[in-house]
Amino acid sequence: MADINAIAKQFTDFYYATFDSDRSVLNSLYRPESMLSWEGTPILGNTSITEKLTTLPFAKVQHKVTTLDAQPSSPTVASLLVSVTGLLVVDDSPNPLQFSQVFHLIPDGASYYVYNDIFRLNYA
Amino acid sequence: MADINAIAKQFTDFYYATFDSDRSVLNSLYRPESMLSWEGTPILGNTSITEKLTTLPFAKVQHKVTTLDAQPSSPTVASLLVSVTGLLVVDDSPNPLQFSQVFHLIPDGASYYVYNDIFRLNYA
Repeated sequence: MADINAIAKQFTDFYYATFDSDRSVLNSLYRPESMLSWEGTPILGNTSITEKLTTLPFAKVQHKVTTLDAQPSSPTVASLLVSVTGLLVVDDSPNPLQFSQVFHLIPDGASYYVYNDIFRLNYA
Repeated sequence: MADINAIAKQFTDFYYATFDSDRSVLNSLYRPESMLSWEGTPILGNTSITEKLTTLPFAKVQHKVTTLDAQPSSPTVASLLVSVTGLLVVDDSPNPLQFSQVFHLIPDGASYYVYNDIFRLNYA
């Protein structure tokens, strides 16, 4: 599964670098049928997802990935499931928050788009 | 998505109750093509997955689900993605461990089997 892991790493590197610098650019990764569950709130479609992501109440954010796992999600299509756990540093807070995030990536030509996205903070 | 959430709840209630009482019974939820990533170790097929789960080095374990999210994982098939975060109490330790787990469930008649399973402990 070397290739799958490389794709997952490349995707999450791009996703979090973009999230942490200019969240509006993430719009290109979602489609009208994409789903986001953000802390339990379901959001449908790239337009609503981008609106949610760009209006989150923090000015500065940094993701630090701790673990990254990937698996093919279908025997017939080159889609993949990516599971991330890590730390979120918000507005230079000295106490990073733990998070879990799952992406379901669907191939689209030479690239992928996000069909499923589930994000949760993990409180101790 | 009320129905999806009910299915996810029913599945995880059964899965964790079974895990915590008799892990060998989980074999029926996996297939030869099922995948498990356990703390980064990839394991393929129900036989190997059951062997892994039944030989984990703890005698007594209890899962406590903190958050549960579900989304349909395909526009054409009634498959679903279930993301869980929670606490794991191992061998009556006073310090529960945080975990994240993702299941990809594929319909099979009136039931579902696990195609993808990704488990991670979250260390602070």
